[in-house]
Amino acid sequence: MATSDVKLLGAAPSPYVNRVQVALNLKSIDYELIEENVIAKSELLLKSNPVHKKIPVFIHGSKPICESVVIVQYIDEVFTNGSSIFPSDPYERATARFWAAYIDNKWFPLFRELWTAREEAARPAVVDKIVEGLVLLEEVFGKGGKGKAFFGRDSIGYLDIVLGCYLGWLWVLEITAEVKLLIETKTPELLAWAERFCANDAVKDVLPEPAKLIEILRICKAREIVAAAAANKVYS
Amino acid sequence: MATSDVKLLGAAPSPYVNRVQVALNLKSIDYELIEENVIAKSELLLKSNPVHKKIPVFIHGSKPICESVVIVQYIDEVFTNGSSIFPSDPYERATARFWAAYIDNKWFPLFRELWTAREEAARPAVVDKIVEGLVLLEEVFGKGGKGKAFFGRDSIGYLDIVLGCYLGWLWVLEITAEVKLLIETKTPELLAWAERFCANDAVKDVLPEPAKLIEILRICKAREIVAAAAANKVYS
Repeated sequence: MATSDVKLLGAAPSPYVNRVQVALNLKSIDYELIEENVIAKSELLLKSNPVHKKIPVFIHGSKPICESVVIVQYIDEVFTNGSSIFPSDPYERATARFWAAYIDNKWFPLFRELWTAREEAARPAVVDKIVEGLVLLEEVFGKGGKGKAFFGRDSIGYLDIVLGCYLGWLWVLEITAEVKLLIETKTPELLAWAERFCANDAVKDVLPEPAKLIEILRICKAREIVAAAAANKVYS
Repeated sequence: MATSDVKLLGAAPSPYVNRVQVALNLKSIDYELIEENVIAKSELLLKSNPVHKKIPVFIHGSKPICESVVIVQYIDEVFTNGSSIFPSDPYERATARFWAAYIDNKWFPLFRELWTAREEAARPAVVDKIVEGLVLLEEVFGKGGKGKAFFGRDSIGYLDIVLGCYLGWLWVLEITAEVKLLIETKTPELLAWAERFCANDAVKDVLPEPAKLIEILRICKAREIVAAAAANKVYS
């Protein structure tokens, strides 16, 4: 679809930017990805998202839209080509919104808790909570009906996008903590779903490689150590 | 509307429950309010919201829906009588969702930060941030067009519900901190909007009296002191 008026301010390693990319791919919308530098934010970003100054920002014509879940809903409502990202049934829509909020507000924050934990001994309990969340989501997947390829449906939908775009960071955790999180014995459905999600045409060129994310994590941790040291006036 | 299959598990002082009540009133839906006790949660609540175990839970027929913003969207999508709560234009819908998320995730958490601040000296800076947020929302209200009674519209909508149901706690802060937050010189539009919102037929019997909220705040603070003392093993 000729859509030169569609721009996305983002950065490839961001799961929130990836969500918008997957939604646009599902709708077969061409877009211009304007790579943002998280250190030196562009004038366009500061002007388009003055409240949070964060990516992603989706610019449709001259209209900026911020926050990944808001953008994905907007894309689904405005671009009616391709299959609908949200379920057509209001109760199923409400259920998808509920679980998306759970993933964003309860489950994924555990990753930050883990990576910022000062005491090594505190980490296994956080990993356990992450796995508990996955087991819960395995049940949600199961409720959608066996045989469906994605959450309650045959094509990628809202909940798949919200959870799926965190998979890169989940693999990073598996590698860095030397632990398997998605495993056959506990979450067989999610394990197979993750493979299907990542192999999908709308996704496969979007999700970043774990090696790239590990490098980002290393840089962020180094910055945090410097910032903490500065805050403690270790450096004058 | 005869809707005996509509139940709301809630408690009158909760702004999140109030949101659902206002939405139902706007749609002229009769409902049964089942008062929950936050200390001894009912079996129905635990069964209906096993993930968060929190109110509000809206039960439509046998289907439970949780999280106030999810419920309000569901109500707007399912009950088509009355005026629409969400704007019909997708960009306006996205804008309303963005500001609702700002209010829930950035602005209102400042109230908790204020009430849980250990140092008295830290509080004025938090009050300043709350006022900054209100000034920002005053601009948002202004952008909706002068002369509109509510956020960008003539009738109460999503953003009015999300912000308006926090007004009770805003008054509590004004009383307890002896500070005026909504004032003629800084936020004249919001000040007038707040009066209109509270006087509206769908709202006026829903919002709790500040005196009741102050009593709840007192009980919560007392509980926190006891919990903190127990954690510090002041009591054996």
